Amino acid sequence: MGTPAALTYSADNCTIGRTMAILGERWTFVVVREIFNGVRRFDDMRARTAIPRQVLSNRLNLLLEHEIVHKVPYRLPGARERNEYRLTAKGFDLYPVLVAIASWGDRYLADPEGPPVEFVHAGCGAQMQVGLTCAAGHEVDDLRTVTPRPGPGAHHRNG
Amino acid sequence: MGTPAALTYSADNCTIGRTMAILGERWTFVVVREIFNGVRRFDDMRARTAIPRQVLSNRLNLLLEHEIVHKVPYRLPGARERNEYRLTAKGFDLYPVLVAIASWGDRYLADPEGPPVEFVHAGCGAQMQVGLTCAAGHEVDDLRTVTPRPGPGAHHRNG
Repeated sequence: MGTPAALTYSADNCTIGRTMAILGERWTFVVVREIFNGVRRFDDMRARTAIPRQVLSNRLNLLLEHEIVHKVPYRLPGARERNEYRLTAKGFDLYPVLVAIASWGDRYLADPEGPPVEFVHAGCGAQMQVGLTCAAGHEVDDLRTVTPRPGPGAHHRNG
Repeated sequence: MGTPAALTYSADNCTIGRTMAILGERWTFVVVREIFNGVRRFDDMRARTAIPRQVLSNRLNLLLEHEIVHKVPYRLPGARERNEYRLTAKGFDLYPVLVAIASWGDRYLADPEGPPVEFVHAGCGAQMQVGLTCAAGHEVDDLRTVTPRPGPGAHHRNG
């Protein structure tokens, strides 16, 4: 086996690394999941996830900063105005990531009775699946036919 | 707006939370990415990612423990036997997650010249795309038609 081609290239501008620098902390993606599930208020997220208050606050601020969520004010009777958190278009575009993670988790980590949440197609009610297709229109059943190659932003490594 | 349905259910057995408990740490998924890119040896991963030695070692052990990678021995001339890390079938099944993360990152976080890596279909060379389809065979173009609902493992929350 020769030297892996990837070794010639820098990983500095990797978009997977950058995405995981935002989402790659256990609680961050759990917060995203909650919002996808319609749980949009701080206290509701606290009640369901038991994330420590300060951690939840930090994660929401990170998501705001990256414009994955935005704040919408609401007011309960007799209470001061608060904000709830909703997905932006950029945040909503994480849906395939969420479903891909859930699919893998459902396959390998679910309890025997099955997963607690299913993602279904509104209207028909059938379960969602994540699939890989190529831009030429082929469905990709065999994952071994997927290959990484240097993209337009590939930089040679120094040293 | 009424109470979100998700609030009625426990998030304790959530497979997204469980997946992120394994992968949800920035460096863990970066290590997975390296192995998908064919970078399988400790020192090569170190050189490309600059992950601190102890962190890389911990992450590889976590991936071994969860059977996402397995070790295969190799020996360079004059050196002691070492191990390289390869994906198991369970690890390989993370490919849709990897491509979904890369697609989102390429869209929102790439440098102007584009991403450093592309995932392509071997043979035809066209770029891979992650798509959602439902089990009834509909392609899902509008993400707003994806809906979470309680699955077979949904538990009511206590209190």
